[in-house]
Amino acid sequence: MTRDISTTADTTWTTGPAVAEHLSRPELDGLQLWWRAANYLSVGQIYLMDNPLLREPLRPEHIKPRLLGHWGTTPGLTFVYAHLNRVIRERDLDMMYVIGPGHGGPGLVAAAWLEGTYSEVYPDVAQDYAGLRRLVTQFSFPGGIPSHVAPETPGSIHEGGELGYSLSHAFGAAFDNPDLVVACVVGDGEAETGPLATSWHSTTFLDPATDGAVLPILHLNGYKIANPAVLARIPENELMSMLRGYGYEPYLVSGAEPEPMHHLFAATLDRCLDEIHAVQRRARRDGLAPRPRWPMIVLRTPKGWTGPTVVDGLQVEGSWRSHQVPISDPRHNPEHLALLESWLRSYEPSALFDGNGAPVQRIRDHNPTGTRRMSDNPHANGGLLLRALRLPDFRDYAVSVDEPGVITAEATRVLGEYLRDVLRSNAEARNFRVFAPDENNSNRLNAVLEATPRAWVADTEPGDDALAPGGRVMEILSEHTCQGWLEGYLLTGRHGFFSCYEAFAHIVDSMVNQHAKWLKVSNRLSWRAPIASLNYLLTSHVWRQDHNGFSHQDPGFIDHVVNKKAELVRVYLPPDANTLLSVVDHCLRSRDYINVVVAGKQPEPQYLDMDAAVVHCTKGIGIWDWASTDQDGDPDVVLACAGDVPTMETLAAVDRLRQEFPDLRMRVVNVVDLMRLQDEREHPHGLSDADFDSLFTRDRPVIFAYHGYPSLIHRLTYRRHNHGNIHVRGYKEEGTTTTPFDMCVLNQIDRFNLAIDVIDRVPRLGPRAAYTREALRSELIEHREYVTTHGEDMPQVRDWVWSAR
Amino acid sequence: MTRDISTTADTTWTTGPAVAEHLSRPELDGLQLWWRAANYLSVGQIYLMDNPLLREPLRPEHIKPRLLGHWGTTPGLTFVYAHLNRVIRERDLDMMYVIGPGHGGPGLVAAAWLEGTYSEVYPDVAQDYAGLRRLVTQFSFPGGIPSHVAPETPGSIHEGGELGYSLSHAFGAAFDNPDLVVACVVGDGEAETGPLATSWHSTTFLDPATDGAVLPILHLNGYKIANPAVLARIPENELMSMLRGYGYEPYLVSGAEPEPMHHLFAATLDRCLDEIHAVQRRARRDGLAPRPRWPMIVLRTPKGWTGPTVVDGLQVEGSWRSHQVPISDPRHNPEHLALLESWLRSYEPSALFDGNGAPVQRIRDHNPTGTRRMSDNPHANGGLLLRALRLPDFRDYAVSVDEPGVITAEATRVLGEYLRDVLRSNAEARNFRVFAPDENNSNRLNAVLEATPRAWVADTEPGDDALAPGGRVMEILSEHTCQGWLEGYLLTGRHGFFSCYEAFAHIVDSMVNQHAKWLKVSNRLSWRAPIASLNYLLTSHVWRQDHNGFSHQDPGFIDHVVNKKAELVRVYLPPDANTLLSVVDHCLRSRDYINVVVAGKQPEPQYLDMDAAVVHCTKGIGIWDWASTDQDGDPDVVLACAGDVPTMETLAAVDRLRQEFPDLRMRVVNVVDLMRLQDEREHPHGLSDADFDSLFTRDRPVIFAYHGYPSLIHRLTYRRHNHGNIHVRGYKEEGTTTTPFDMCVLNQIDRFNLAIDVIDRVPRLGPRAAYTREALRSELIEHREYVTTHGEDMPQVRDWVWSAR
Repeated sequence: MTRDISTTADTTWTTGPAVAEHLSRPELDGLQLWWRAANYLSVGQIYLMDNPLLREPLRPEHIKPRLLGHWGTTPGLTFVYAHLNRVIRERDLDMMYVIGPGHGGPGLVAAAWLEGTYSEVYPDVAQDYAGLRRLVTQFSFPGGIPSHVAPETPGSIHEGGELGYSLSHAFGAAFDNPDLVVACVVGDGEAETGPLATSWHSTTFLDPATDGAVLPILHLNGYKIANPAVLARIPENELMSMLRGYGYEPYLVSGAEPEPMHHLFAATLDRCLDEIHAVQRRARRDGLAPRPRWPMIVLRTPKGWTGPTVVDGLQVEGSWRSHQVPISDPRHNPEHLALLESWLRSYEPSALFDGNGAPVQRIRDHNPTGTRRMSDNPHANGGLLLRALRLPDFRDYAVSVDEPGVITAEATRVLGEYLRDVLRSNAEARNFRVFAPDENNSNRLNAVLEATPRAWVADTEPGDDALAPGGRVMEILSEHTCQGWLEGYLLTGRHGFFSCYEAFAHIVDSMVNQHAKWLKVSNRLSWRAPIASLNYLLTSHVWRQDHNGFSHQDPGFIDHVVNKKAELVRVYLPPDANTLLSVVDHCLRSRDYINVVVAGKQPEPQYLDMDAAVVHCTKGIGIWDWASTDQDGDPDVVLACAGDVPTMETLAAVDRLRQEFPDLRMRVVNVVDLMRLQDEREHPHGLSDADFDSLFTRDRPVIFAYHGYPSLIHRLTYRRHNHGNIHVRGYKEEGTTTTPFDMCVLNQIDRFNLAIDVIDRVPRLGPRAAYTREALRSELIEHREYVTTHGEDMPQVRDWVWSAR
Repeated sequence: MTRDISTTADTTWTTGPAVAEHLSRPELDGLQLWWRAANYLSVGQIYLMDNPLLREPLRPEHIKPRLLGHWGTTPGLTFVYAHLNRVIRERDLDMMYVIGPGHGGPGLVAAAWLEGTYSEVYPDVAQDYAGLRRLVTQFSFPGGIPSHVAPETPGSIHEGGELGYSLSHAFGAAFDNPDLVVACVVGDGEAETGPLATSWHSTTFLDPATDGAVLPILHLNGYKIANPAVLARIPENELMSMLRGYGYEPYLVSGAEPEPMHHLFAATLDRCLDEIHAVQRRARRDGLAPRPRWPMIVLRTPKGWTGPTVVDGLQVEGSWRSHQVPISDPRHNPEHLALLESWLRSYEPSALFDGNGAPVQRIRDHNPTGTRRMSDNPHANGGLLLRALRLPDFRDYAVSVDEPGVITAEATRVLGEYLRDVLRSNAEARNFRVFAPDENNSNRLNAVLEATPRAWVADTEPGDDALAPGGRVMEILSEHTCQGWLEGYLLTGRHGFFSCYEAFAHIVDSMVNQHAKWLKVSNRLSWRAPIASLNYLLTSHVWRQDHNGFSHQDPGFIDHVVNKKAELVRVYLPPDANTLLSVVDHCLRSRDYINVVVAGKQPEPQYLDMDAAVVHCTKGIGIWDWASTDQDGDPDVVLACAGDVPTMETLAAVDRLRQEFPDLRMRVVNVVDLMRLQDEREHPHGLSDADFDSLFTRDRPVIFAYHGYPSLIHRLTYRRHNHGNIHVRGYKEEGTTTTPFDMCVLNQIDRFNLAIDVIDRVPRLGPRAAYTREALRSELIEHREYVTTHGEDMPQVRDWVWSAR
């Protein structure tokens, strides 16, 4: 399969003699040799478990019994890698390599080994014969390494198993790294995903003066698993038009003959780097910030390039059949074995490796040195570069609470002032950004805009609010892009904070899965340094989406993250502003976690002064003595609550019950750190059974008002002695556009229903119980009539304050 | 804010006298009157709870106490609606309206009311004064209707609360509806989302001969909640280039002066419809299928168009400040009240409504009639059009199973043959499609391609496999687009089947949330007819992603859907091919559910012949007597299993234990329908306590091998008597690239660990227990050594068959 070779971008750039001889012969030979070595090692990893240098004829027992790997994308990835190495050396570039088609794992492992990094990180995979044997054997082998690019792969911040996030990761890495160039291969399959499609827009948020550069390389490999790729089959002028529309100047490099392709790609790469340099110089030296057109490359090569053309009579090279293992059964089929051997020998291994199995000097000479090697770039092991944030004292932002439950405050607005000063304190270090999908102000974090504008590299108009290049508030209406940027930013050693409507955090469910998996594996690799935690603030939450209605009401993101490894996940439900401050301070100091903080933005009662808040958050769970009436320590009933609205409703119920039943012994337990509920054997934050019993008793009824789906509380507590007595109220998927209090009523987590729950479970209340129960029911009905007539909550409900002082 | 008015597409299309006077004066007046009425009613809905015709001066008590709604997008939506009505009448079009900015709910409700549909569906909201009063009051009011477009809104299939899916829904509606034109407004905020960005590619899958048309209208409203929209601020030539790159011919209509805008939009709309007609004629009459360029419109109007320009000294019209409620407090602020009144009166309500409150005749004349009204289009209440599938007898595809656990089959490959014939049986009705993100063949449903090709309207090359316009297998590497298409297809009264790698179903977590919410509300509306269920096949599942590694291993989608209303969700884990056939037949006949079927694609043991499979699936859960040894009905231990791999491991454990402990009384319970585990009070499929006890006993140990995260089994069973004795094995987030059996070992759900679990929980086994336990442990260690040396599972593990006959 040979295609026309051409490069096209605009009319001023055409193929000519200069391109055809862009590289000197020694440069070309070095490139070609390095590429052949990387390809040889890739095929070797997929197939071999012995005889890695083909010193003897290939025999069935040299072949792995299970062939697990992806060849199709690999030679394109190694081709680009080889070329990046040339320009890194020539220009002394600080460069990272993010590849979307992460299933091309063998190519990246081969590259890291050729560069020597692999052996430095894993000494038993040395640059000698034994190391080479181990290199090929370990790949996709039990006890070895995964088939994809993974945390185990030096130089990577991106697994690429789930497709769609390469470009947003690359931009996240480039932010605030002005000297970094992130080369990012986007697969043509990946390019069909939604997250990738919108992430092209990232240039609108990248400041050429203070951020680094991303060089996208769209790899038109032609085929996915079984289908052609859309971008490879639409007319070329449509493709180029689309990419120009996204703000790039695309250069097409297309072909299959190695030698002309080397010249062409090298010339194109040089041109792109010159243009990147020119854009940056304009912005940095001349202080001009017009919207730049960033260069990018469209690389069209045959899938499975340099692999077998035809196998069993079917086209393989240049076809979807090369996606995984092109020759399926060399262990049992002698023809396949011969074909594989001739494929491997086509790379001439004896010219690539010396007698010890180490790469020959000409290949070594093609490598950059030290941390200029992309496999050893410290940005790709970001924890190495991580500097702790300078944090203002969160106590300075405290809401003054003289007595509990009387004044109101907007918790997230208070937090905004703290975050504003975190931004200011770290303005010079440029290592902290906040992210939100057009919701920063809606989530009432407005104050952050006093410290920094929103990043924006496009037109502005009069009346726009805080938009400028270099802003540190990242707002695009794409949860995927926010998450991808933030992950890239964290993985390269910086800090961030993501605020999101609670319901729409589900949009990134699958991305948080992948990040959790990355963290889990990284934590077990001693050479990967800890990175800052991924911090979510879920606000505009289920109980305060009364105005947007049912589509905006879903508290299930908590359930989703709790499925991840306990060592990674923390969930906090601070009931008021001071506890929120304390929790966020803690999260910003933490490492390697996924912290989920749920807190409302509406004016709500405040309960704890700052000292009490710190104590409460440190314990994560505790009895609120001031609200409890079991001074003898022997409660009739425990009222537990987690979340700001459930806490308010619980306290309002307690307030009422105190008046109705002065001798009822109630204990109020508030939960900030949800994982405290779990067993200490299941979660590092879990309480011991004894501690749990001391809070929840072994035998008294517990009415638990919980922010989210009730099942989670049962799931966390099912092993506890008193589990059979825990009655949970939470969100049961009822809601619409209505009043805030009516949202509680619809889900029976309101004060009236909670009080009735208590009455129903404390038999000793006597005859007054039935009477009060009936009164509470009547008030519920009265409420419903009131809101459907007046369109707002009854004042006595809306303006409730804690009355027992 | 006035902008230049122009329309640009290509050089042959320029503004001229023909455009400036495109509409006759009566046409223009009718349009303008209808638009004013729709806008008046929209403002009325947001603000008023009385005095809907302004017969008396506006007073504070006419204003709702809580103002919940979105004005900003609404006038653009009503503008388009008014224009669509003109062309529907003139051309007798079958047209639907899908709007991405669903928060423009009041506009759509107003339109449905003006068309009379609203009063037909909701007789108490009649076209009279009382009805009008109710119309304005009910909006965003407790006991009323939601603030967004919702199932309650006649004519809608799309809520738009969570943004991103309008275009994929529109294309889903257009597939196989050759006479339908779906006008789809894409908000410029929504356009930033990933799912929307990639859904532009849908034209590559739309057959102009046999499908209908989608007319996208990208609404450059300029601002989101607090930020400008990216597409509204990048240079116009970039935007147009991007859209051309996506395969469209975009026409720009930009301006703020109503009269010229009416002429311009009308001319553009006529041109677009002419082009659509021409494309379809070429394909249908001439039989030509070149890749068409479909027309689309870019509509640039001020946000909050026709609303107040300045409020409290700040720009509102044409700014993000008009996003929700432009005048914030007319109830308490007299200036605001006066401003609101003058805004409302600017539409001249007395010219819009007659003395009874009904729309005047000239407005009525602008409406299409009957089901040509977009609010009454039956496609938007697809259940009305739903025809049951003609289903072949699934028994005909049975795998012949003479004895359990001996032969192997690939369950999904067998299913593929059944689905092939479902496609064939309904080829003429054209009401069934299968969807997969480039995974149809990987999921071994290859046989479906014998019945129909994959849909594909782009270049093909030699060697391509089954690609053609009109194909009924929908493959794009975007789970979002597959899901969006399928939802649109189902909501318009057709059937579908979505196969997906299990781990990556999480990509559509949030979409399935929204679909579940839509179904829940629709089910409570008597006028919405039931639609076909949303059927997922999750395959390439966690236990068989040993080759792709950790990133591909996640069984949590089940947990996610189980959070939805019990009435909507069904989860099936058929253990073999015949049970899979039975389950899928059932799912394809069902209505209004979300069915999640989990089944593997690899060769696995088969247990049940077809008769037994049907019985087992009908019960959903049952004792497998042939595998049990508690013939006296008094087991020492219950071994429960759900999922194909857990079932195999459980039976292998039983096999071994039978040999080791001939007198051990084991009961094997297999679960197909996961919801049978839940309480009958919680789920319609739930077992009674008595039935549960009869299977699981009240006091014997239960070892439960479950496909997914163990916590779900505890969550479903925590109320059962025997819950304290249920010990669950499942996926605990351990995995990498390894062998299939090693995946089980890593998560301790393998036969050895299960057998050890039994031994540890049945004290009466005596001295042999310790010995056997040690032997099992040794075999585990031996296994680990074997796989890390040989790279494959031990033959005795890999080739296990059920031995007890």
